[in-house]
Amino acid sequence: MEENIRAIQDEYPDDFAWCYGCGRLNEEGYHFQTYWNGDRTETVYEPREEHIAIPGFVYGGLIGALVDCHGTGSASLALHRKNGYEPGSGESPPRFVTGSLHVDFLKPTPQKVSLKAIGTVEEIHPKKWKVTTEVFAGDTLCAKGEVIAVVMPATFAQPK
Amino acid sequence: MEENIRAIQDEYPDDFAWCYGCGRLNEEGYHFQTYWNGDRTETVYEPREEHIAIPGFVYGGLIGALVDCHGTGSASLALHRKNGYEPGSGESPPRFVTGSLHVDFLKPTPQKVSLKAIGTVEEIHPKKWKVTTEVFAGDTLCAKGEVIAVVMPATFAQPK
Repeated sequence: MEENIRAIQDEYPDDFAWCYGCGRLNEEGYHFQTYWNGDRTETVYEPREEHIAIPGFVYGGLIGALVDCHGTGSASLALHRKNGYEPGSGESPPRFVTGSLHVDFLKPTPQKVSLKAIGTVEEIHPKKWKVTTEVFAGDTLCAKGEVIAVVMPATFAQPK
Repeated sequence: MEENIRAIQDEYPDDFAWCYGCGRLNEEGYHFQTYWNGDRTETVYEPREEHIAIPGFVYGGLIGALVDCHGTGSASLALHRKNGYEPGSGESPPRFVTGSLHVDFLKPTPQKVSLKAIGTVEEIHPKKWKVTTEVFAGDTLCAKGEVIAVVMPATFAQPK
């Protein structure tokens, strides 16, 4: 149980842990953390005070960023599990990039409430996974998202 | 000519100028500014040093945010023009919210290069506009986006 709540972002190799959305080494970033809850994935985040669209409501770009990193993290969890590993196993998980991002904004998202992204992961190709996400503010479904996540190509994997 | 390069975000009423992406009054935000270039719209932005996916490449969530605010700003410019006004005319422009956001990431986006979003706006309903956007890093087309922007509903327009 405890192993299952380890976030996949804690397992990325250091060279790939700088993402503004979810990199543990990016001091300015959001530090999204994505983990299994049964066969669904979860990312919880409380937006900062400045993350507003208008006062009282969360900025859509933050929700897009949450859906994005939750998507790549979920795909990494799923392929890692397919390969026989869970976070905490000591194996580096595969790192994904975003092929496409789609968000439908269903309701204004209230500020000062934790957001929870809940994802369903589906393999559509060995290197391409679809992550369907619902974003809740408390009990209210505020947005639905879809990410096509692609195993990071070699052209990307050239950190300075 | 000079009037046409005024950004629509400079014309939003103060109550609606707090967006993290494009609000001139949000001290922490990106301050995206969207203006006409002929019959296309433009937003130029240089990502901050911390806005990375991995070192050397821009974080996709920043590109999503750029497409998002560029979309609502472009729709505002277009409806304002339809109503007979340009930025600088002294009339407050209509404020839009994002109904949906889609981004296709075509190429890794290099860091330390100005990004330019170029938009085409189409009315699909008097209160709903489609903005198709290309995001360039220098001369390289890195992403394509589509925003469905909706005139801000009354439920949103209750600033604290």
